[in-house]
Amino acid sequence: MGFVELAQGKVAEKGSRVVVGIDPRLERIPPALRGDGFSHLLPYQSAAEIFYEFSRRIIGAVEPHVVGVKFQLAFFEQLGSPGIAALERLTRLAREMGLLVIMDAKRGDIGSTAEAYANAFLGRFRLGEVEVEAPLKADAITLNPYLGLESLGPFMERAEAGGAGLFVLLHSTNPGAEQVQEKVLFTGEPLYLALALEIEAHNQEHAGEGGFGLLGAVVGATYPEKLATLRQLMPHTFFLIPGYGAQGAGPAEVKRGFLEGGRGALVAASRSVIFAWEKDPTDPQGVGFDRAAAEAAEEMKLAINRALGLV
Amino acid sequence: MGFVELAQGKVAEKGSRVVVGIDPRLERIPPALRGDGFSHLLPYQSAAEIFYEFSRRIIGAVEPHVVGVKFQLAFFEQLGSPGIAALERLTRLAREMGLLVIMDAKRGDIGSTAEAYANAFLGRFRLGEVEVEAPLKADAITLNPYLGLESLGPFMERAEAGGAGLFVLLHSTNPGAEQVQEKVLFTGEPLYLALALEIEAHNQEHAGEGGFGLLGAVVGATYPEKLATLRQLMPHTFFLIPGYGAQGAGPAEVKRGFLEGGRGALVAASRSVIFAWEKDPTDPQGVGFDRAAAEAAEEMKLAINRALGLV
Repeated sequence: MGFVELAQGKVAEKGSRVVVGIDPRLERIPPALRGDGFSHLLPYQSAAEIFYEFSRRIIGAVEPHVVGVKFQLAFFEQLGSPGIAALERLTRLAREMGLLVIMDAKRGDIGSTAEAYANAFLGRFRLGEVEVEAPLKADAITLNPYLGLESLGPFMERAEAGGAGLFVLLHSTNPGAEQVQEKVLFTGEPLYLALALEIEAHNQEHAGEGGFGLLGAVVGATYPEKLATLRQLMPHTFFLIPGYGAQGAGPAEVKRGFLEGGRGALVAASRSVIFAWEKDPTDPQGVGFDRAAAEAAEEMKLAINRALGLV
Repeated sequence: MGFVELAQGKVAEKGSRVVVGIDPRLERIPPALRGDGFSHLLPYQSAAEIFYEFSRRIIGAVEPHVVGVKFQLAFFEQLGSPGIAALERLTRLAREMGLLVIMDAKRGDIGSTAEAYANAFLGRFRLGEVEVEAPLKADAITLNPYLGLESLGPFMERAEAGGAGLFVLLHSTNPGAEQVQEKVLFTGEPLYLALALEIEAHNQEHAGEGGFGLLGAVVGATYPEKLATLRQLMPHTFFLIPGYGAQGAGPAEVKRGFLEGGRGALVAASRSVIFAWEKDPTDPQGVGFDRAAAEAAEEMKLAINRALGLV
């Protein structure tokens, strides 16, 4: 079974289209959890341990309301090998709980280097005489298209072999997204739209049972008009939609990224869920940070379903 | 002192414009080194140890002939946390030897995520109440421009504060590079050229003592006409030129990426140097793999200098 079928199955099972982004920041970890666990002598190791414990409790708490988690690699890489070790444990934990794991890696490279990145995140690979599992084995990863769709080949082969998913970054959520992505081509359309049509053409030709092809797309909800246009033009492409919550988009915006019946997309939110405890003045130490995250995730699930006319 | 000044100083000191790419692959590590060190029970850990030992000896051997090393992150990430731990040790080792360290990360992300990637690779950052060093502290990193030059802001701030360098990917070496990078814009120029002019304009305005700005560029030597055009149009931009050796470019091609006097660029080669031992039929076990790498690096240094008319 491919990733999209797996994801649509989880959506049906849980009645949720939410993916929670795990982007830990030390200064926003609740004092109640952090305590005096941060050591000046072992800063990376102790921060990684705090990230692990915070993320583990968030994942456990939001699990009933979400279909998956999206790990932002940068926040773990900044702690070096202890950070990656913590991410390895969290990845296994989330998968064992039956959650989809999406690595927000935005990797992009060529040839054997792209293959090595696939080794890190997708399926299994040969290491010497043995076959091993990707150390950060995920159900899907995000990719950057600047090196050409040809450069995605090694990821596509691995994803096809192992039933994993790929999300190609088309339109990001940041204010400067238009500087490159919206450059207008000679043919009259902006760059992101030209790439969108190429991806959709590939997916249409290779669509699986559920009607979707292998190449998903990342389309930010902070540009809702563009999201709506891409949704119309890309019926065979599964979307990952960031930008909900702290970045400013709400149910009305993300709704535009779905096909009829609430199909075809997952919505990711990070800060508005994992740091929801900060908004509760009755709990300044964040004792109930995990419960606050669960409530925010449930609210987000329901708000999106309502906007889609599903409740 | 900024990165470009540092790099030009190393070039003058060593009479070399070569950076060796450290992209270890287990199946190409010489049997003489690998021995029976690879364990089926601890595949990641033992492979990481072999990568460390191989890279350490290569770095020691090529040091007299190169100005720096370029680590390809993917080959270490594929081994998970043991791979990153090996890379941390190699990074420190290379820096202690006075070599420039370039992280070929091709990262690209937005806002606080871009900042977290900067934390991983550049200078120092605040973690809780302490200031720590980037766990993979490098002299420079490579970046992907698809999210807009605005998205590079956090990297630029950090680089400026810590004297580090940035190389923005403009034109890659792969066959599919043209699929996105050469898309022709409404204004008549291809995308990579439009980005090049924006980067050059920024560098011209903010050029330092040596005449170069903060934003370097990655331009592959496998498209020599484009390399020559970019060199002409970007006199204030420092280049990192991949594609030499195994990817097919030679001295005549990379020469086109330099300014007069052999200034303004570094050339990277990986496989043709680090796996040079494979070409010696008298040493099938690769006992002298490090000496073979040193010879290949020296030859490359001299060939480039000859092409530049410097010897």
